[in-house]
Amino acid sequence: MKLSKRAQQTPASPIRKLYPLAVKAKKRGVKVYHLNIGQPDLETPVCVKNLCTKFKKNLVYEPSQGIPELISAWEKYYRDLKLPIKEKDIIVTTGGSEAILFALQATTDPYDEVLVFEPFYANYKSYATQSAVKLIPISLKIENNFHLPSKKEIEKKITKKTKVILINSPSNPTGTVYTKKELQDIVDLAKKHHLYIISDEVYNEFVLDYNKKHISLISFPKIRHQLILIDSVSKKFNACGARIGCLVSKHKDIVATALKFAQARLSSPSIEQYALIDIIKKARSYTPKICKEYQKRRNVVYQGLKQIPGTIYRKPEGAFYIIPKLPIDNAEKFCTWLLDKFSHKGYTLMLAPAKDFYATPNKGLKEVRIAYVLNCQELKKAMSILKTAINQYNK
Amino acid sequence: MKLSKRAQQTPASPIRKLYPLAVKAKKRGVKVYHLNIGQPDLETPVCVKNLCTKFKKNLVYEPSQGIPELISAWEKYYRDLKLPIKEKDIIVTTGGSEAILFALQATTDPYDEVLVFEPFYANYKSYATQSAVKLIPISLKIENNFHLPSKKEIEKKITKKTKVILINSPSNPTGTVYTKKELQDIVDLAKKHHLYIISDEVYNEFVLDYNKKHISLISFPKIRHQLILIDSVSKKFNACGARIGCLVSKHKDIVATALKFAQARLSSPSIEQYALIDIIKKARSYTPKICKEYQKRRNVVYQGLKQIPGTIYRKPEGAFYIIPKLPIDNAEKFCTWLLDKFSHKGYTLMLAPAKDFYATPNKGLKEVRIAYVLNCQELKKAMSILKTAINQYNK
Repeated sequence: MKLSKRAQQTPASPIRKLYPLAVKAKKRGVKVYHLNIGQPDLETPVCVKNLCTKFKKNLVYEPSQGIPELISAWEKYYRDLKLPIKEKDIIVTTGGSEAILFALQATTDPYDEVLVFEPFYANYKSYATQSAVKLIPISLKIENNFHLPSKKEIEKKITKKTKVILINSPSNPTGTVYTKKELQDIVDLAKKHHLYIISDEVYNEFVLDYNKKHISLISFPKIRHQLILIDSVSKKFNACGARIGCLVSKHKDIVATALKFAQARLSSPSIEQYALIDIIKKARSYTPKICKEYQKRRNVVYQGLKQIPGTIYRKPEGAFYIIPKLPIDNAEKFCTWLLDKFSHKGYTLMLAPAKDFYATPNKGLKEVRIAYVLNCQELKKAMSILKTAINQYNK
Repeated sequence: MKLSKRAQQTPASPIRKLYPLAVKAKKRGVKVYHLNIGQPDLETPVCVKNLCTKFKKNLVYEPSQGIPELISAWEKYYRDLKLPIKEKDIIVTTGGSEAILFALQATTDPYDEVLVFEPFYANYKSYATQSAVKLIPISLKIENNFHLPSKKEIEKKITKKTKVILINSPSNPTGTVYTKKELQDIVDLAKKHHLYIISDEVYNEFVLDYNKKHISLISFPKIRHQLILIDSVSKKFNACGARIGCLVSKHKDIVATALKFAQARLSSPSIEQYALIDIIKKARSYTPKICKEYQKRRNVVYQGLKQIPGTIYRKPEGAFYIIPKLPIDNAEKFCTWLLDKFSHKGYTLMLAPAKDFYATPNKGLKEVRIAYVLNCQELKKAMSILKTAINQYNK
């Protein structure tokens, strides 16, 4: 029995596909530093854990749009960030991933086109195949620190089928934080061509340069009614497994549509909805500390890459990722070799080959994504192992 | 800005759309008996609640296919039911709803057709619009207790675009349990026309007649590789808010595809995955008691309907729903009136108009769905209120 085309076109997770090799390496007694997945090593906040253990209610369907206290907590979170977002603009989702699916399905029909800037978060490909839309990639350059090309360049890719620009700043996998000018270009294009913008801002708390800041697209008044924001507790509150995110829009039909999709899946998980309320309200006393930690780590990775001649990279400005181009023949081959053949004093690394973060074939073949989700000491060791590995690989 | 067609075609939940009126009624001091939604009033098992409060780990991404202990618990559950299902056949999902979306998206491309028997679970419409497929309804008759028409009748609806037969036994909203002969017909048709069967068996534990039993489609060997089973903890373990279900298939590409979709949404909620393990393993000492309770309730509702002249109904065989045809002009009008205008000694009812469970326009206009999710005493009272209400409505 044949699978659907969309099933066939859906990629396996590039972040997870080398796992079987990592498991084998561990069985051989090798310690693997995981730099392949954006799963922070940081503790889930104590208040979240405490609230989880206090949950004594029946596990009933909660309201499809999210429990009122959680919606109100998100509103407070945005108010503290001085963003004009009200409770009525918010639908709680089961992770940021569900929010993106809802956003795509509210704005597109099959075979419509969605502009994305590559390299991009690899799961966007799956959301696109599941929603039966086509991703149209606009390639970014490592030498330009993955910043956007000119408005004119972007505009060339807009066709009659284009419905959405999907943007992600700070960016996973590049760590790039788009400037006000870049965002203004996107806003102008969306306005001119009547496109929706889906703005994935889940890394909004993690801007690592003091002279940069995250600008939410909702702060551009003229685009407000064409905009859908995506958010999640996963990274900013170290609660990936909670599966709590939200979809935000000032377009009330979009919110009504997201609610209809939400009703069809009934509700988001009960316990985590209750458990996250507190930390979302208290975000301002939590996330800046987390951000400082990532700043330190970013510097360790950056200094580490400096020690590896022939590597091309720029300093990432946000999130907790970097995509360097390594002095090797092929990144997938290298990442496989790291797990399969290599170890140094009992250690090796797991990295994500970057080609899967591109939609254009044969892009990023020598690039890897490094997620700096280890403490500084381990990260320093990992970077030194990377240097040793590259030397040995190239011998 | 226009919404997508699929957004426009997605219905609001028929089960939830009269809620604002129920809220108003409650504000007027009227007590509302909720027979509109399949949310059991029964307690979540103590072991589930205890395990929830013992969760002390970080909320990290768990494996996308589900945590190993939970997959193993599902395997044991099916083994105890003597069903040939192995760990490798199982993907844990975020509710049965996600399992249906995965199943549809693995087997269909946009504009493909999916056969369903109406009235059907209303959210199927949303899963279809989200997946951009067309539901082709085959109408069932109340006089036949919503059993299936002949194989020949069903076959008439199969076209080149048909990819899937979506079946649900015991059925929400009708309470019908299909016979072995009916299921054999479906199997034969699927085999002959190379169709997948998506079998939503979430009510498998609730067969209310002693001389009937639930037959899982997986017990038909010849269809095994064209079959996807849908399951959920929501109803059988009174844990709707846990959002834990599973997708089961012997077709390994289907399982691989479901895993790819699962990877894109990273993982199901952590705490509930751990919390449900125990009860799933111990199902055989839990669900038969729950089933007995629904048998009693079914009898109360059935006896209650007998007291209302002009009502057409049959005795439901499973799940915890019934669709009677009431002696009224219009069910939606009547359900609205119940909340808006009527009360009897301070009480009223909330029912779900049945027309939204049909895909064919103007079907089921005088029918309602009653979910018997109140204890027998309250249910008795509710049925007597229904009688009073119909009398008064028709005056």
